[in-house]
Amino acid sequence: MQLNGKHIIAGNFSKTGSDNFRAVNPISGEELAVDFCEATYDEIDQAVQQAEVAFQHYRKASGTQKAKFLEKIGDEIMALGDDLINRCSQETGLPQGRLQGERARTVNQLKMFAELLREGSWVDARIDTAIPDREPLPKPDLRMMQIALGPVGVFGASNFPLAFSVAGGDTASALAAGCSVVVKAHPAHPGTSEMVGRAISQAAKACNLPKGVFSMVQGKTPYVGMAIVNHPLIKAIGFTGSFPVGKALFDAAAKRDEPIPVYAEMGSINPVFVLPGALKERAESVAQGLVNSLTLGVGQFCTNPGVVFSMESAESEEFATRSGELLQEVSTGAMLTSKIRDGYTEGVKRFSETEGVKILGKSKQDVSASAAAGHVFQTDAQTFLRQPDLSEEVFGPSTIHVTASSKDELMKLAVNLEGHLTATLQATEEDLEEYQDLVEVLERKVGRLIINGFPTGVEVCHSMMHGGPFPATTDARSTSVGTAAIARFSRPVSYQSFPQFLLPEELRDENPLGIWRIVNGERVKGSL
Amino acid sequence: MQLNGKHIIAGNFSKTGSDNFRAVNPISGEELAVDFCEATYDEIDQAVQQAEVAFQHYRKASGTQKAKFLEKIGDEIMALGDDLINRCSQETGLPQGRLQGERARTVNQLKMFAELLREGSWVDARIDTAIPDREPLPKPDLRMMQIALGPVGVFGASNFPLAFSVAGGDTASALAAGCSVVVKAHPAHPGTSEMVGRAISQAAKACNLPKGVFSMVQGKTPYVGMAIVNHPLIKAIGFTGSFPVGKALFDAAAKRDEPIPVYAEMGSINPVFVLPGALKERAESVAQGLVNSLTLGVGQFCTNPGVVFSMESAESEEFATRSGELLQEVSTGAMLTSKIRDGYTEGVKRFSETEGVKILGKSKQDVSASAAAGHVFQTDAQTFLRQPDLSEEVFGPSTIHVTASSKDELMKLAVNLEGHLTATLQATEEDLEEYQDLVEVLERKVGRLIINGFPTGVEVCHSMMHGGPFPATTDARSTSVGTAAIARFSRPVSYQSFPQFLLPEELRDENPLGIWRIVNGERVKGSL
Repeated sequence: MQLNGKHIIAGNFSKTGSDNFRAVNPISGEELAVDFCEATYDEIDQAVQQAEVAFQHYRKASGTQKAKFLEKIGDEIMALGDDLINRCSQETGLPQGRLQGERARTVNQLKMFAELLREGSWVDARIDTAIPDREPLPKPDLRMMQIALGPVGVFGASNFPLAFSVAGGDTASALAAGCSVVVKAHPAHPGTSEMVGRAISQAAKACNLPKGVFSMVQGKTPYVGMAIVNHPLIKAIGFTGSFPVGKALFDAAAKRDEPIPVYAEMGSINPVFVLPGALKERAESVAQGLVNSLTLGVGQFCTNPGVVFSMESAESEEFATRSGELLQEVSTGAMLTSKIRDGYTEGVKRFSETEGVKILGKSKQDVSASAAAGHVFQTDAQTFLRQPDLSEEVFGPSTIHVTASSKDELMKLAVNLEGHLTATLQATEEDLEEYQDLVEVLERKVGRLIINGFPTGVEVCHSMMHGGPFPATTDARSTSVGTAAIARFSRPVSYQSFPQFLLPEELRDENPLGIWRIVNGERVKGSL
Repeated sequence: MQLNGKHIIAGNFSKTGSDNFRAVNPISGEELAVDFCEATYDEIDQAVQQAEVAFQHYRKASGTQKAKFLEKIGDEIMALGDDLINRCSQETGLPQGRLQGERARTVNQLKMFAELLREGSWVDARIDTAIPDREPLPKPDLRMMQIALGPVGVFGASNFPLAFSVAGGDTASALAAGCSVVVKAHPAHPGTSEMVGRAISQAAKACNLPKGVFSMVQGKTPYVGMAIVNHPLIKAIGFTGSFPVGKALFDAAAKRDEPIPVYAEMGSINPVFVLPGALKERAESVAQGLVNSLTLGVGQFCTNPGVVFSMESAESEEFATRSGELLQEVSTGAMLTSKIRDGYTEGVKRFSETEGVKILGKSKQDVSASAAAGHVFQTDAQTFLRQPDLSEEVFGPSTIHVTASSKDELMKLAVNLEGHLTATLQATEEDLEEYQDLVEVLERKVGRLIINGFPTGVEVCHSMMHGGPFPATTDARSTSVGTAAIARFSRPVSYQSFPQFLLPEELRDENPLGIWRIVNGERVKGSL
């Protein structure tokens, strides 16, 4: 595909602004061909206006129609072939194998929502039938289901150029719910975004959907994103990225004349607790697993393990030391952008200079322009509790071992945690029996608890909660991965005393879609 | 019961402040016995601290334990007998019959949540089983369910002293979800609140629950409410009341270091569209129904019909005139407080003085101290569209007929509506066929659509959506009435690779609670 550097506004290309930028290859440091351009207000407004027009029709599309659209998007993405993988690899420095995997994940995600839509029960249909002769007052016929929220603004993330970007989880779940989508592409991979954006546009056309169901604008400054959040026709925001940006979007949305929900997944240090029994039993394999998880994708996963807690002992000392040694055998490469690398370098410097913190190991670093070395630090609980900086995410392949001198102190470390995406326990069955109170504390701190695994690796399925209490996200009640993500972009509506013909199919007596419903309190699949 | 005017802080009475106030009988205008007192910061902090301590245990209570607690609260409320009804009637001016009905509704609401908890499926349990040999990566065992959010602040409403107050829908749904609750009683009915608060405390004691599971503080100034919203241990807010107060709570919550969800149900004019066929067929009965709905509870329902749209015709003129005449036959009495009455009087004055608005009828008004007369106004679409004031809620028994000169103009009126709780259509089947586009527009504006009924009368059931787009509420994704209200106070958590003994019962293989679960994408009730 020949890139043109243009925004996609409801199926049409546009490039009226003057503020150009280019993608940079983080390995070579060189600019990549094709100028992209900051979207103008008029372009953003056009995109949102068209999203609103399209929404009025698209929200009424059947589950089958929406499923076909999502599947078609997947087909169009696959049809981009190696062009997509090549450009994406150039823009992100991520290896082709990883990107092929991420593409498969993205396409499977679309298929998973398609399946959810074909099955249809996600709308949580409920029917309470009338009792006209009830005393003292008749009971009316009431039926309720989820309907789409409205046009949604989606922000592409830097670290998953496919799975959390233009056709990523936010777009897939919003389209599945019946919302039109305006994407703000991430400026680190504008070419990848253009390709995927064109694929979605193509799919909309092939499915005869209104063109405004999808638009995508490019932009490098906060202006473009803020214009989307502040547009009165936008009804929700999906975002994955840094805390300062996510929080700024949340604040702007809360200050609108009509506040709207912002689902911002912002950051997490994903604490790992390595309990005494596990240390005794398999310190070496835990250390190896930790280093693998830490350096996966040059540490640029939302679920990167940024802190490791254990109880002071000969084994824990050996374990920490060993993880530093193992890291030294690894070679880490380019981070996604030089800006991200600079932020990482600064964070690592801050840690290094903190009194009471020592470096246990550093990875080899390749010659990439934006390469960064992995770091394993160590400190004690007192220092960690005294220095709030050490609890802040350093986005990249860095982690810190924190040793507690007693179980009480370990519990204190857990109680003091802010909200995170995940918490992990490396533990034997005996550990788990002894540390049930730790599990209960962590249950309140995170969205996902992991036993004897590592936090990286976010399964796309029905039971995935990828989210968590603030400041990990701005809305702990929702996930950005898995089928439950669809709930973010819908709201319930009740229909009282409606004649059959006027009801959505999901709520009609005969249950033509054969979905699960709650009828007078009973969960049933049949007709009335 | 002898009132003592004290706050209930985790089962203990407290009254350390100095700022006293009394309830006023809105019929006689006289102060009622017993001094109540503004809660101090220490008292509020104590209540919230104890709510946090209690939460750590209460959140783990089984569905059966929570169900027994809710049922016991109902029993304790009933055991208050006529004392409660008498005091409540004195404080609110509402007739005993209405309050007996409201008490039944409150108790039934508690029973409904108890039933939901005994059934247990509300937690939305999901299980995806492991595939250890999946390529390229093994699939882990993942299980997800809803858990309680944390201590919740609940604000009593003036207009439903029982059903939306201390033991009302917000408290019932929060306790059902497993949250502890700190109630800010409404200062218009502090004695009623104390009685019900003591009943809840008594029930907690009888059920051997930690005392901090429920606290209740009194207060007349915004200080008390703001102290609850801003307390870092409070994790969500339930509120029913005016727009300025609800919005202030929302804004404060969004500005906290850790923003929290605020479910504020604030106001609505509940548009009623009377379509041409219905006017031809049964103008008289619609006019009578409108006047009944309008004057119910002296117009102090959230779902009061504040505006009536119709198409200009001889029938619509006759219908509007007739509703004015019918209103003149009604006698309206005391509003809940003199402050509410003054606000209403001001609103009615504003309408009366607006050019292009005329009064079609006024009810008789009894001799109560805070009595108010019902009003039926009339204007045309142009005036209504030009004067945004006319779209603002006048809380009380006032409505305005707005006639459109064409279907286009009627549609424009609908498109211009802000978010409301309900919209109603009085229509024949032919009307509905012709006005499907109107239904589609209204579907985006409200939480509940009603055909050939009136908006007052909010059924407590599974299919009720009592909520709606901003500014009707601060969160269109939720309801404050019906079983779905429980979702406001919970959040999903995933458990990855957990051993059976450490999993919540809801997620264990054998499904000991026999609940509905989604297992590998299939909705099933059996064990694994």
